[in-house]
Amino acid sequence: MVAGITRVVWLVSLVTAMVQADEGMWLFNKPPVRQVREAYGFEIKKDWLDHLQRSSVHFGGGSGSFVSNEGLILTNHHVGAGTLEKLSSPEHDYLKNGFYAPTLGEELRCPDLELNVLVSIEDVTQRVNAAVAAGKTPQESFAAWREVAAKIESESLASTGLRSDVVTLYRGGAYHLYRYKRYTDVRLVFAPEKQAGAFGGDPDNFEYPRFCLDLCFFRVYENGQPAKTPDYLKWSISGAKEGDLVFVSGHPGRTNRADTLAELTLARDTSLPEHLDVLLRNETLLSNWSARSEENRRRASGMITGIQNGRKSTEAKLEGLLDPAFMDRKAASEAKIKESFLASAEWKSAATAFDEIAQAHEAQRASSSRMRLIEGGEAFNSMLFGIARTLLRSGQETTKPDGERLHEFRDAARPSLELGLFSSRPIYKDLEIEKLANSLTYLCGILGGNDPLVTQILGGKPPHERAAELITGSHLEDLTLRHRLYEGGATAIAESTDPMIALARLIDPVGRALRTKSEETGETITEASQRIARARFALEGDSHYPDATGTLRLAYGTVKGYQTVEGKVPWCTTLGGLLKKSADQGAIAPYQIPANWENKTFAAESPFNFICTADITGGNSGSPVVNTKGELVGLIFDGNAPSLILGYGYSDKTARAVSVHSAGMLEALRSIYRTSRLVEEITR
Amino acid sequence: MVAGITRVVWLVSLVTAMVQADEGMWLFNKPPVRQVREAYGFEIKKDWLDHLQRSSVHFGGGSGSFVSNEGLILTNHHVGAGTLEKLSSPEHDYLKNGFYAPTLGEELRCPDLELNVLVSIEDVTQRVNAAVAAGKTPQESFAAWREVAAKIESESLASTGLRSDVVTLYRGGAYHLYRYKRYTDVRLVFAPEKQAGAFGGDPDNFEYPRFCLDLCFFRVYENGQPAKTPDYLKWSISGAKEGDLVFVSGHPGRTNRADTLAELTLARDTSLPEHLDVLLRNETLLSNWSARSEENRRRASGMITGIQNGRKSTEAKLEGLLDPAFMDRKAASEAKIKESFLASAEWKSAATAFDEIAQAHEAQRASSSRMRLIEGGEAFNSMLFGIARTLLRSGQETTKPDGERLHEFRDAARPSLELGLFSSRPIYKDLEIEKLANSLTYLCGILGGNDPLVTQILGGKPPHERAAELITGSHLEDLTLRHRLYEGGATAIAESTDPMIALARLIDPVGRALRTKSEETGETITEASQRIARARFALEGDSHYPDATGTLRLAYGTVKGYQTVEGKVPWCTTLGGLLKKSADQGAIAPYQIPANWENKTFAAESPFNFICTADITGGNSGSPVVNTKGELVGLIFDGNAPSLILGYGYSDKTARAVSVHSAGMLEALRSIYRTSRLVEEITR
Repeated sequence: MVAGITRVVWLVSLVTAMVQADEGMWLFNKPPVRQVREAYGFEIKKDWLDHLQRSSVHFGGGSGSFVSNEGLILTNHHVGAGTLEKLSSPEHDYLKNGFYAPTLGEELRCPDLELNVLVSIEDVTQRVNAAVAAGKTPQESFAAWREVAAKIESESLASTGLRSDVVTLYRGGAYHLYRYKRYTDVRLVFAPEKQAGAFGGDPDNFEYPRFCLDLCFFRVYENGQPAKTPDYLKWSISGAKEGDLVFVSGHPGRTNRADTLAELTLARDTSLPEHLDVLLRNETLLSNWSARSEENRRRASGMITGIQNGRKSTEAKLEGLLDPAFMDRKAASEAKIKESFLASAEWKSAATAFDEIAQAHEAQRASSSRMRLIEGGEAFNSMLFGIARTLLRSGQETTKPDGERLHEFRDAARPSLELGLFSSRPIYKDLEIEKLANSLTYLCGILGGNDPLVTQILGGKPPHERAAELITGSHLEDLTLRHRLYEGGATAIAESTDPMIALARLIDPVGRALRTKSEETGETITEASQRIARARFALEGDSHYPDATGTLRLAYGTVKGYQTVEGKVPWCTTLGGLLKKSADQGAIAPYQIPANWENKTFAAESPFNFICTADITGGNSGSPVVNTKGELVGLIFDGNAPSLILGYGYSDKTARAVSVHSAGMLEALRSIYRTSRLVEEITR
Repeated sequence: MVAGITRVVWLVSLVTAMVQADEGMWLFNKPPVRQVREAYGFEIKKDWLDHLQRSSVHFGGGSGSFVSNEGLILTNHHVGAGTLEKLSSPEHDYLKNGFYAPTLGEELRCPDLELNVLVSIEDVTQRVNAAVAAGKTPQESFAAWREVAAKIESESLASTGLRSDVVTLYRGGAYHLYRYKRYTDVRLVFAPEKQAGAFGGDPDNFEYPRFCLDLCFFRVYENGQPAKTPDYLKWSISGAKEGDLVFVSGHPGRTNRADTLAELTLARDTSLPEHLDVLLRNETLLSNWSARSEENRRRASGMITGIQNGRKSTEAKLEGLLDPAFMDRKAASEAKIKESFLASAEWKSAATAFDEIAQAHEAQRASSSRMRLIEGGEAFNSMLFGIARTLLRSGQETTKPDGERLHEFRDAARPSLELGLFSSRPIYKDLEIEKLANSLTYLCGILGGNDPLVTQILGGKPPHERAAELITGSHLEDLTLRHRLYEGGATAIAESTDPMIALARLIDPVGRALRTKSEETGETITEASQRIARARFALEGDSHYPDATGTLRLAYGTVKGYQTVEGKVPWCTTLGGLLKKSADQGAIAPYQIPANWENKTFAAESPFNFICTADITGGNSGSPVVNTKGELVGLIFDGNAPSLILGYGYSDKTARAVSVHSAGMLEALRSIYRTSRLVEEITR
């Protein structure tokens, strides 16, 4: 579900003065050249960086990289899992059992998968700021920003043919235009069975030592042929060694290091607990629905993995923010920054920005539950509802000028929107009913059964009965119907009697009003944040990185273990370690030996998973790890437990990024999976 | 955890005028003689009823019955599960694998299990009402009630030696003194493996058709010998048949049929959603903790079953109350009753009682979260915490006169209190840490991390670290220490530096204040409810039953199937049906064939589970089903899905009680489990 889009993303780092060794998710157009030189004596050169950038792939909410000049892409099994699920059927469960195309012709075309490669970055801060001049109301400012951003994007799309996104950095301190080459013909080449890709399942998730072959290969095509990708990462046969300097190029999704104390308090006491509640509801629902049959289990498996991942990371964030010592440090750091502002005649006014941000959030508080439930879609956990709302709004928005539309309906975003809307991925109506019933019940619990909007939504029926009526009555699973309604625009939609369209129509005015209010709040926060950012650029210089925004970043660090009270944690595990771990756990789920590993001879001592100090977070999954020569030495797939609170502040004490080792991957592909075509291509 | 005790239990049924066929959970001293005679032509005689009462056993939160004259008790596997778990160890997992004592000497003594058999009922309404005379404040009334109840109970205990409880019925419309014979030497005789006892697990729970051998046998001893129990139920070899009139004697825990509309609204919008949140948290925690190892799975298995059961029933209740049609009927019925009050000069004043009840709940609202978290113990999900609080309060309360103590520390309740406090059941500290950390995090989410009480409770640490400190630092798992602190009283407790005692001490003043306020609210509600009850007795007569209160009740009904949109649901299943169901589900968990059933020859066509229209609810688990001759024809173990909302109103359309059939039990014990000693005893 698309929630309100605002310019507010992240505030300039408040901890710059204390940047630690190996800290940072750096912009490719502002790389940590000085920092790496000083710490490691290695010089990041432009060619080296450009090559790494063009070898990096934005893969949905994750990352990937080219590993051959014929469009072959390496990412994580768990990043590809959603696609594996969409490709599967009761007859062929590729997520569970894996897949290998022994020939090019057998590679499987993926539904609605869009991959993007960052081609260029342009700083458009001045143009945006000129358009959003001072003296406007928040509402006017937001409208002006929306208009100028849409204009920059559509001009760029028209002139270059490239996907073009205006990215907000430093919470509005800077705006950069990112242009991407877009691939939509993507095919599956290889995936191991889930038991190998996610060995240890949820219990081992975010843990280390680990034993996961969390990899997947796809290939992008152009005009029906493998795409030419001259920029790709050479596979390092020996891979990472202890003590090596390594780099990670990927798409960290979101960090909150620059949030104000008030914002972290709000996250701790409201948004994280609420998010956790929703995850727990969905996890329980799907786990129990899965237990009803093997086919249910297949259908829900990918969703459950994603939810469990979110639950663990949310719990860890909560534990981090509930540490009074952490919050005290945050308070002290914020006080110090405010002091430095007050001591400067020119930037004094930025000191009040912190309170303005807090007040804006406070003003939003009363409508925040409705915002997430109605406009954020938490009350309507159904694919059919999502489709209905997109169709309804597309009809409405298409009639407006590009710069006045809801963000996701602007021209530059249409190709991606349509890819999702017309996806052929299966919609399971029995599961849809359960999910919708569960989320409607949640809505009732939050707003109360007598709330007039709730009463209208339920239409005189209890939640489960109402959900069954809506899902059974809707025909939006039919792609032809979707096309007809989309292309027929507002008129076709107005005539539709589909109950899900009717529901979307019913709540639309409420949703839009909530979104407008939220956007205005966001704008107030952006303006305050910009004042802080400018003051800090002026007082501290701008040689630091902005919080993560899901765009390409460079991190660096050392391959090394760490010390805990129980002893030394080694820098790597071995392939043979999986067998030992399985035996230690009595070979019960989720620790059974993967089917393909039974009765195979392989180099048991080969490094399998390893850790490094690079600064990563969710979204970095599938990122390549490269050495100073730019060779692929590993594949990020996780962070250990202490890394889960890195979103609020970096530490290299025990927090580590966890990767699959290039030598271990190669040995598994060669000796266990016997994928000779693939091995030949990546070692060519 | 013991929450505030109030006199408020349940309001006199508001639906009397519409009592349906087979409706009712009747008092044994007010049996449905007329109703059964009119509907079935059967005369309930005093001897028949007395024999059934004395054959019925109160089994913790469930029910059971004597099935031999040597103290042999039949109950459900899931009622015995907690005890099976306590008796198990990593070497002997009786919950998972079952147990059979081929000789008397091999029966296993159960820790802290107390069973009670109802010996007599005495109406003490007049004595209670005389003590709680009009013109008192709610606080004075509550104190007076507490004093008179404790006095009645301790006098009865002293004069009869029997456990004596004053039971509040009709929400204060009547008070009855229940006297029980108490058994504390209870031994395990037989339990099937869990896969047979709970075939189909959570997915099949509250479903029908079913295939569960949900039974367990215990035996009570006196002076080291099997107790003499001349009142026992004769086992019917042929068992229930379609169309039979049957009776159920058991301990339904709680129904809310007499709640006011305002109370049902509060349950729908607040207490049920909150309760569901807590269940979801605990279910996810325990499921994921279980997945870490086989031993974890063993330790948490029973708890998970209980939580899943609660989650399903809470969800069903919520769906029931979220049905606008149901709430409209409730509103209409309440309006009609108010009208009848207003039309009577004498009872006019009872009409305002509905609003007074609503206002009392409203006044309680602001402190209700703190009440359930702090005094209700939801913030401290730990056995060690429960022990610490009991020890602390025992020290404080012992110094007071009996009638002024917290309810659970009055003399008459001491034996049961001590049985729990000094139980030898294992305490797993690793699980204790996870449970406490999870519930402390929940506390923070509800009250906020800056709440002064939360700050004190966390003591400067994040929840998980704090939980680990408390659990690791406490030594209350040591029975000797517990005895020393209990017997040493307030002085010993004051000197204790155990961190869990310190935590209990920290929150005690807050908890007591919350409880006092809650008791006062309860008293206000009781007084209003009594006015309603008296008005209704006067205007409608008192030939109806009160809401369930966990005490012995008689229900009756017909053995019969029902019709759904998908077709006719049969009155019974067969033993062979289990094999077919397993095959249909691909024999995956939770549908594997139980280990003991493999390669056994048995009468596949023997009736296994069956349904009837008797009015039951949670707490009836393990209740005997008897025929008109008073013979045991079945064993209640569940209700089907439509029965889950019976707590708010009876219906015999599709709601059914689900039982194990006496013939199927016998055949399984004989041919599958080959328990010849047991078979001989029950067919003697």
